[in-house]
Amino acid sequence: MVQVNVTLTETIKKLLEEKKYSTLRDVLTTMMPYDIAAVFEELQDEKMPILFRILPKELAAETFVEMDEETQEFLIHGFSDSELKEVVDELFVDDAVDLIEEMPANVVKRILRTADKDMRKEINELLKYPEDSAGSIMTTEFILLRPDMTAEMAIKRIRRTGVDKETIYTCYVNDENNKLIGITTVKDLLLANDDDYVRDLMEENVISVHTLDDQEKVAQMFSNYDFLALPVVDKEQRIVGIVTIDDAIDVIQEEATEDIEKMAAVLPSDKPYMKTGVFGIYRKRVPWLLILMLSATFTSTIIKSFEGVLAQVLILSTFIPMITGSGGNAGSQASVSVIRALSLGEIEFKSMFKVLWKELRVAILCGLTLAAANFFKLMFFDLRNYDGKGEPVLIALVVSLTIFGTIVMAKIVGSSLPLLAKKIGFDPAVMANPLISTVCDSLSLLIYFAVALLVLPNVLAV
Amino acid sequence: MVQVNVTLTETIKKLLEEKKYSTLRDVLTTMMPYDIAAVFEELQDEKMPILFRILPKELAAETFVEMDEETQEFLIHGFSDSELKEVVDELFVDDAVDLIEEMPANVVKRILRTADKDMRKEINELLKYPEDSAGSIMTTEFILLRPDMTAEMAIKRIRRTGVDKETIYTCYVNDENNKLIGITTVKDLLLANDDDYVRDLMEENVISVHTLDDQEKVAQMFSNYDFLALPVVDKEQRIVGIVTIDDAIDVIQEEATEDIEKMAAVLPSDKPYMKTGVFGIYRKRVPWLLILMLSATFTSTIIKSFEGVLAQVLILSTFIPMITGSGGNAGSQASVSVIRALSLGEIEFKSMFKVLWKELRVAILCGLTLAAANFFKLMFFDLRNYDGKGEPVLIALVVSLTIFGTIVMAKIVGSSLPLLAKKIGFDPAVMANPLISTVCDSLSLLIYFAVALLVLPNVLAV
Repeated sequence: MVQVNVTLTETIKKLLEEKKYSTLRDVLTTMMPYDIAAVFEELQDEKMPILFRILPKELAAETFVEMDEETQEFLIHGFSDSELKEVVDELFVDDAVDLIEEMPANVVKRILRTADKDMRKEINELLKYPEDSAGSIMTTEFILLRPDMTAEMAIKRIRRTGVDKETIYTCYVNDENNKLIGITTVKDLLLANDDDYVRDLMEENVISVHTLDDQEKVAQMFSNYDFLALPVVDKEQRIVGIVTIDDAIDVIQEEATEDIEKMAAVLPSDKPYMKTGVFGIYRKRVPWLLILMLSATFTSTIIKSFEGVLAQVLILSTFIPMITGSGGNAGSQASVSVIRALSLGEIEFKSMFKVLWKELRVAILCGLTLAAANFFKLMFFDLRNYDGKGEPVLIALVVSLTIFGTIVMAKIVGSSLPLLAKKIGFDPAVMANPLISTVCDSLSLLIYFAVALLVLPNVLAV
Repeated sequence: MVQVNVTLTETIKKLLEEKKYSTLRDVLTTMMPYDIAAVFEELQDEKMPILFRILPKELAAETFVEMDEETQEFLIHGFSDSELKEVVDELFVDDAVDLIEEMPANVVKRILRTADKDMRKEINELLKYPEDSAGSIMTTEFILLRPDMTAEMAIKRIRRTGVDKETIYTCYVNDENNKLIGITTVKDLLLANDDDYVRDLMEENVISVHTLDDQEKVAQMFSNYDFLALPVVDKEQRIVGIVTIDDAIDVIQEEATEDIEKMAAVLPSDKPYMKTGVFGIYRKRVPWLLILMLSATFTSTIIKSFEGVLAQVLILSTFIPMITGSGGNAGSQASVSVIRALSLGEIEFKSMFKVLWKELRVAILCGLTLAAANFFKLMFFDLRNYDGKGEPVLIALVVSLTIFGTIVMAKIVGSSLPLLAKKIGFDPAVMANPLISTVCDSLSLLIYFAVALLVLPNVLAV
């Protein structure tokens, strides 16, 4: 969907070539900022400033926010100081902060120099908050009301001051010590009588987050409580900003991507895939590949120490990939369910025993099914004309018992490791598939050889 | 976060025991519906109806929506018809539809019988739309304006009719043929002059979705365009409903969970993990486990046909888990990046060659790093005191070349399969890790044995 209809982009390019600027302006004003930004990304560099200057001031700023950082930086380099000021003045403070966080130092200096004094002060305030905190994603532009205003006065105030607020729909009520004491909405104010007091309309049971709270917590609260905005307060319960739902959605998407990447042993990144260079992707992927490759040494060591056993009944080695594979898959299934439930706030560490009990029962069912299917397959296909060492039925038994044991082990490992990670303060998602697979690989081989030595003691006597 | 503070739940339980109903009511009205619902889930069955009756009418309905279906069903069974009617009347239509879709037939009948005529009609309309379509998640309660109204008239209309609309903030403008011709917001109306016409205030460039569009597309549009609501139109461009942002967030979370589950070879479910029974989880997990176990037969067959080779240089078999493991991990990394980018609308099938070219370069870098690390490890550790058949340096070469080839193959397979799946109309996520691992397992073994036969022809001559 990011891909703009090619014909439209091409039309715009042609209009640009032909210098039909007023037609272009008419076309662009029918489009959404997100789509105009996509057009910019398909444009040759030298055309960008021209097209940008055609946009009406407000639309230009909105489009600018949607662009990727390369395009933003390129445009800023081409701006005169007054052009830059025009764009910066139109930005909401939180967007300006996002921009500053992504630009190189010389560009940041120019932006701060052109921003007006109030904006510069607010930007500097926001820059103090740690990355991924509520403070870092909030905006400082919101509507404040007093409890002794009437609904009519409140609406008047909103009409007077609302124009440069990111949202007017949720309004915040302060007492004389600037403590946040209530929340009301434009809906409530409009549906009330003109002379109702804000103090009687407001919801006093305010749900807020602290500036240093994690943005993931903030996003989770939006999805639980159906808010349009959430107030951010300091230690003294004074409101310092609000997080709006559009930013919460971005956080939700970002956090899901991060979980998915970690589960696949990729270091998380907040840059889109197509915008990340080859070296960037390489750096995100190679560390885990190396760690996992080296940790496979355990598996090799185990196989090596049972070389004697394998040499006796060669066919046993052909089932190794199936056994380790099934273990890895069963473990991933369990870990992914638990990690996602943790992310969505459905379970916590204290549910550990409930989870384990559930996984144990699931594992027994899955293990029995797989062991039975496997026994059948071995007896009627793989071992049908077997003429090596050992009774076919005993070999089938070894493999099937191993499958059962492996599934049970893998589900327990897969579900408990993320919970333990969470407990000791790690991100559960780093305990995901690849690491769990490696652990399960080793354990399943140990189960395999133990079962083999138990069931086939005479055959395997070394 | 779902877990309610235990002390609070316990306080509520005690107050219930002591029948302090007015205190209870005071306590409950300070809480959010989502949290009250969580309290219900920790209550004994016989206490639920009592607690529910204590809640003020509107809060009761809001809490009811947040409950899981078992609790809802249990409560409905205990309701008198008039109690049921009170709850149903307070529900928004889309919530009533969600409820009906989850209840057994006899409960559905009772709900439809108690709903008033208009509501019943609207419910029946909405039930016609296929699952996961825009129509199935929309609500039919929204504000309609006419282009020839003034801002003042529009605000008056909103004040008169807004009370039972799910959102009043986005208003829709119809022409005389009931075609949707514009959108305006309460913010625009409030900030305008009283005598400005809606036709001059409205945004005519309306972005809408069709009733049958996929809910994933709808959610993606919310995250691209920062809307609070999105109009849903029929074939004649008449507005039939709106999707509000709170429902879009639920879809975003649902779709991310679905992607994650599919990537881990779990059949997707829309029930939370802790609410799904053991058999439910078993049924979601065992099909892929079986398929993947059986498909591991390929791997076994390949190993079996090279048994001769392995018997010659026994140490080669100890590296199999490391090689297949690295291939699987490299493939998952690529497939997950591509699947997520597809889900977020960052790439499409036509970007296939761009993606492959990128992955090829990443693969060469990762492959070289891993091969070098591996060669070093083999020469200085694993093969240091090797006294079997074959030169250690040649064996190290075989393994390292295989690692390089495997990584390149896995990245190409991992990135192209999801794109091809998308192209032929499958969900890219079903092509994820486990299936790709199985494919990569077989291919990496073929690479291994081919390289071995090439580098060690004399040693392996059978």
